[in-house]
Amino acid sequence: MTRRIGILTGGGDAPGLNAVIRGFTRRAVREFGWQVVGIFDSFNGLILEPRRTQRLKDDEVRKILAWGGTILGTTNRGDPFDFPLPEGRQDLSSHLAQVLAEEKIEGLVVIGGDGTQKIALRLMQERGIPVVGVPKTIDNDLSGTDLTFGFQSAVCVATEALDRLHTTAESHERVMVLEVMGRDTGHIALHAGLSGAADVILIPEIPYDPARVAAKIQRRQRKGRCYSIVVVAEGALPAEPDGRPVAEADRSRRLRAGGGAAQILMAALEGRVDAEMRATVLGHLQRGGSPVPSDRLLATRFGAHAADLVAAGRWGRMVRIRDDHVDSIPLEQAAITRFVDPDSELVSVARQMLVELGSE
Amino acid sequence: MTRRIGILTGGGDAPGLNAVIRGFTRRAVREFGWQVVGIFDSFNGLILEPRRTQRLKDDEVRKILAWGGTILGTTNRGDPFDFPLPEGRQDLSSHLAQVLAEEKIEGLVVIGGDGTQKIALRLMQERGIPVVGVPKTIDNDLSGTDLTFGFQSAVCVATEALDRLHTTAESHERVMVLEVMGRDTGHIALHAGLSGAADVILIPEIPYDPARVAAKIQRRQRKGRCYSIVVVAEGALPAEPDGRPVAEADRSRRLRAGGGAAQILMAALEGRVDAEMRATVLGHLQRGGSPVPSDRLLATRFGAHAADLVAAGRWGRMVRIRDDHVDSIPLEQAAITRFVDPDSELVSVARQMLVELGSE
Amino acid sequence: MTRRIGILTGGGDAPGLNAVIRGFTRRAVREFGWQVVGIFDSFNGLILEPRRTQRLKDDEVRKILAWGGTILGTTNRGDPFDFPLPEGRQDLSSHLAQVLAEEKIEGLVVIGGDGTQKIALRLMQERGIPVVGVPKTIDNDLSGTDLTFGFQSAVCVATEALDRLHTTAESHERVMVLEVMGRDTGHIALHAGLSGAADVILIPEIPYDPARVAAKIQRRQRKGRCYSIVVVAEGALPAEPDGRPVAEADRSRRLRAGGGAAQILMAALEGRVDAEMRATVLGHLQRGGSPVPSDRLLATRFGAHAADLVAAGRWGRMVRIRDDHVDSIPLEQAAITRFVDPDSELVSVARQMLVELGSE
Amino acid sequence: MTRRIGILTGGGDAPGLNAVIRGFTRRAVREFGWQVVGIFDSFNGLILEPRRTQRLKDDEVRKILAWGGTILGTTNRGDPFDFPLPEGRQDLSSHLAQVLAEEKIEGLVVIGGDGTQKIALRLMQERGIPVVGVPKTIDNDLSGTDLTFGFQSAVCVATEALDRLHTTAESHERVMVLEVMGRDTGHIALHAGLSGAADVILIPEIPYDPARVAAKIQRRQRKGRCYSIVVVAEGALPAEPDGRPVAEADRSRRLRAGGGAAQILMAALEGRVDAEMRATVLGHLQRGGSPVPSDRLLATRFGAHAADLVAAGRWGRMVRIRDDHVDSIPLEQAAITRFVDPDSELVSVARQMLVELGSE
Repeated sequence: MTRRIGILTGGGDAPGLNAVIRGFTRRAVREFGWQVVGIFDSFNGLILEPRRTQRLKDDEVRKILAWGGTILGTTNRGDPFDFPLPEGRQDLSSHLAQVLAEEKIEGLVVIGGDGTQKIALRLMQERGIPVVGVPKTIDNDLSGTDLTFGFQSAVCVATEALDRLHTTAESHERVMVLEVMGRDTGHIALHAGLSGAADVILIPEIPYDPARVAAKIQRRQRKGRCYSIVVVAEGALPAEPDGRPVAEADRSRRLRAGGGAAQILMAALEGRVDAEMRATVLGHLQRGGSPVPSDRLLATRFGAHAADLVAAGRWGRMVRIRDDHVDSIPLEQAAITRFVDPDSELVSVARQMLVELGSE
Repeated sequence: MTRRIGILTGGGDAPGLNAVIRGFTRRAVREFGWQVVGIFDSFNGLILEPRRTQRLKDDEVRKILAWGGTILGTTNRGDPFDFPLPEGRQDLSSHLAQVLAEEKIEGLVVIGGDGTQKIALRLMQERGIPVVGVPKTIDNDLSGTDLTFGFQSAVCVATEALDRLHTTAESHERVMVLEVMGRDTGHIALHAGLSGAADVILIPEIPYDPARVAAKIQRRQRKGRCYSIVVVAEGALPAEPDGRPVAEADRSRRLRAGGGAAQILMAALEGRVDAEMRATVLGHLQRGGSPVPSDRLLATRFGAHAADLVAAGRWGRMVRIRDDHVDSIPLEQAAITRFVDPDSELVSVARQMLVELGSE
Repeated sequence: MTRRIGILTGGGDAPGLNAVIRGFTRRAVREFGWQVVGIFDSFNGLILEPRRTQRLKDDEVRKILAWGGTILGTTNRGDPFDFPLPEGRQDLSSHLAQVLAEEKIEGLVVIGGDGTQKIALRLMQERGIPVVGVPKTIDNDLSGTDLTFGFQSAVCVATEALDRLHTTAESHERVMVLEVMGRDTGHIALHAGLSGAADVILIPEIPYDPARVAAKIQRRQRKGRCYSIVVVAEGALPAEPDGRPVAEADRSRRLRAGGGAAQILMAALEGRVDAEMRATVLGHLQRGGSPVPSDRLLATRFGAHAADLVAAGRWGRMVRIRDDHVDSIPLEQAAITRFVDPDSELVSVARQMLVELGSE
Repeated sequence: MTRRIGILTGGGDAPGLNAVIRGFTRRAVREFGWQVVGIFDSFNGLILEPRRTQRLKDDEVRKILAWGGTILGTTNRGDPFDFPLPEGRQDLSSHLAQVLAEEKIEGLVVIGGDGTQKIALRLMQERGIPVVGVPKTIDNDLSGTDLTFGFQSAVCVATEALDRLHTTAESHERVMVLEVMGRDTGHIALHAGLSGAADVILIPEIPYDPARVAAKIQRRQRKGRCYSIVVVAEGALPAEPDGRPVAEADRSRRLRAGGGAAQILMAALEGRVDAEMRATVLGHLQRGGSPVPSDRLLATRFGAHAADLVAAGRWGRMVRIRDDHVDSIPLEQAAITRFVDPDSELVSVARQMLVELGSE
């Protein structure tokens, strides 16, 4: 009997999701002869009634390589383990195992962030549901893989924004603050800031001292450069008065109350800097649009390799790339965060390029 | 003796300023044999000491056609008529007339928005300082000219943002709010919203009813389109409870207190819409970067025509384009605002394309 | 009974075709309640068996505004009046009238270039088939309308290419030749050349003297600018030795034999210019991809107005824009070519900007 | 005494050259306190009289990160070892050693391709001239380094072209041939072709069988996809009748006589394919324009590391990146070409994505 494999996309959007779907489906259908079942809106397409799935063939994936978003939809509606179950079902894992049996789906390819991968892992551990993971985060903050698709696309959007801000900042003699994504990690801010010649880059991993930021802006003014470009990750916060980072428990609250990282920074600079400040908040621009070529290629390779894992029966593994070689790691290792190392070469290069990081 | 003509850029940045400078200088130097004197930071380069000017020749303008910003700098430091004058000088106009005589500058080409043109007009009226105006506003809201350079570039940035937001909004089932420039007029919002297939476009000229906006979003949800794209001009506000627009005197205060037009809209929709909402605030992105081709061409034509006006001794006029023909109008007519006409073809087309404008 | 109106796209591709289809369909379906029938591959979808048509509703056109190409396909397979007819049919017009009767299609909206509009006109004249035309040419060379959609998109592609060539030409001290579309008219070359700061612009309307082109390049070298950027329209040719243009009858042959306009130019400059020359041939890049915002808007307005013409029973007319107002002209006037006027303001501005046009 | 280090750019243009210059200069000036001497037009700025050099300080490199081209110029005027020497000088190496002594330049940072690096190596070997190399090739075909700057930028230009060609090819039912750079190696063609969903990718390393290419196009037509997208590297040729590659000695001649790789392919398909074919030749577009963010970052890292090598006295080495770590290798290993391995994962992925490579 023809094998039937499900595929779904979970968590936030990232450019390249469709390229993974196409990469997996092409290989699955043409090389291995399987039926590929697209599941809509993450696990919801299977959990909620009516179920929503669609057979994916060559035609369904033929044109989608360059498309942003995901043809399968995604969702952020909270943890499916908290969802109410149909009567008679005891837990999500056994419910889902039953659904898969009814749909004759042998296993699942789960494209998603760490939250989605944790759900996949739990399904496998609790009821042996066969899963293969494909990592997805525009933040590029998974320690298991050198790179995730969507990251370079997000960096590109942020860098183009910096290119635009440079001309207007310089003509106007203003401080331009660009808030980019990165709630926990500053990879996007660091890459875009370096590529876009920012004068200041503030990231969650390095709590910043507003006085240092202001001093940098003033030094530039004294040299006749009456403008500065500041990149701030959405999770970057000033250090506490004693120099320590804001406690994890307080971070979300502080960011929300302060109106976001850009607003908090501008409030902290108020009075210390003699220049008008203006904020641009990119928000979901960084998640949308067509992936850059290298993300399309990486996502295609991830999708194709996921098919190879299924073909080899290597369930419970997550695709990754290391040293430009695509292979896999156990799903258990999927969700370890990779932070920006303050002692890394890139941070060092930033300092060499005269970028102020807000801390010694 | 060789004529010496000054040129300056005032007010906010707009893509195409450098193209005007190049267009004027090429024609002035090569056709007419004048000396062109670039004046830095609007009138400040002449008013403040030390004066800051630079001779512009072919070489200075050779590469600048496609550059964003302005090589002459600009400023927003308030009304120069309020500046303190050097001792012994009675008023700005007579001071400036004296400075021009000292610098042997016969007259000024003033590239700027309505504020800058009003200053130019006053200088001419008070002391006969010869000026030619070139209009500049990315908002395209001057009744004297069909089009201003920078507008299409700003529309392009906003439309590209909408293209990106579409993919992610649809995958995520979210309401995406894009705040674009337009404090008094909604031309950018209307053009970008129509070009970017927005579902809702809110502009300052049409005070909106949040209930109508919410109803549009809900109608879409009922049809299975669980996402919507909303463009809101930075000056768009809900109507007062009695349906009237917010009084002009209160508008700035309301916008500031509410955190900007996007925040005010999201607060007004809160509780009426069952979907997550996310804001992107483009800010100065719309002013920066290289002008689109049609803006480069328009700005070049404006600059060249300004030289023709000077050559003909037609001081006191402002360049404009009407029915694709570049000519000029009296400077007195420069600063009349052109609002979006709620009965115009474009608003009508928006409604035909099922766009909700927030009002009947 | 519900009216049924057909719509088709003919001739070469142009960015904005889908925006017209959407503009017409939205208005036709929602305002007027008609059935819209999309016809595939120009008239072929009706003429050839099996017929290929598709009902277009809101859903079919909902996402297509920004798409390049045409969802209805187009064709260049020659004149349908030369096609073999089904047995028993006497001529194409009567055959098509019969087909439309069978399909219960009352009339046709025909989006296409001058060739397609001539076919439409002949169908109307021979058998009274009701047609409304929408002009389409990226060359913007129709005298009946100020502007056609697709033109600004093509200019944008060509200008971006020039921007790229500038940096590399200057670093390398090379002559870069960019061949752009424009077999009969030079509007794209002139607009892109001016927007992209070309040093030389060669168009079909002005037969060029290679010696003048070479002299321009040499003058630049003597000033230390050892590179030049040349834009050449695909239909630009050197003048005959006596200074007259190449006879119309010979043009295509000459262009083909010479390997295209860029090759002919480079051969003509060989030996006259002491610099390496390199050619870029954009070809169909200029027809593909997403339309720029102003083309999306113009195409939307054209589509909506076509519906208004049908609603008013004004068959036999072609939509156009004049002085930023969308209206219509008789279809008989559709196909009059608008050439670049060598005495126009734009050509004059080009000369003022020191562009060499290859002739006095 | 302050150390003086020279820097130059040689060979073809590549996006990112200015980023290297900036990266080196910032580190050299600010961290190490050296004087940096920019040398114009590769070695020519030192060899030819008058010498052309310029002191590079912070100000000279402040804005250049995102610029295409090279502020130092480059040249392709042949091997400087063949240049005539000033009277009394015996060989280039000793002449240059003398010039460096006169200019008080201690050593050279040489940014260039394999040709330029060979010159640098010979200068060092013959006369002990201290050099540090920075590799430059948009082809990414050096075995010593995982990646070279400019490559991703070139891939991006080519992929955007493919995106555009897709829409127009599909609407028109045409075969679109895109010729991309790659005289000896097919890395650009392979990456861009995979990222841009090409149906056929032809590279120098895999001599192609035109019959296989035609068969692929026909298979697509039989499935109703009457268009195909073909990427051909400028050095790709059909196999000889016996299946062997064209002899190296004949390749350039064959390509030139055939009018380039795209023309040769179209001629070989003529008569085998029932569809119109159109060519786009990108040429130097791929070398020009602003580098993509990842190229800016890589180039910055290369430049900074070159300064570290000079500081450590590690002359005779070339910067490279391996496994995302920037270090160096002996200059002797600089010029080994990395070809596309027909058994590599990427070629395999291409086949999995149904790409025809023209050979089994």
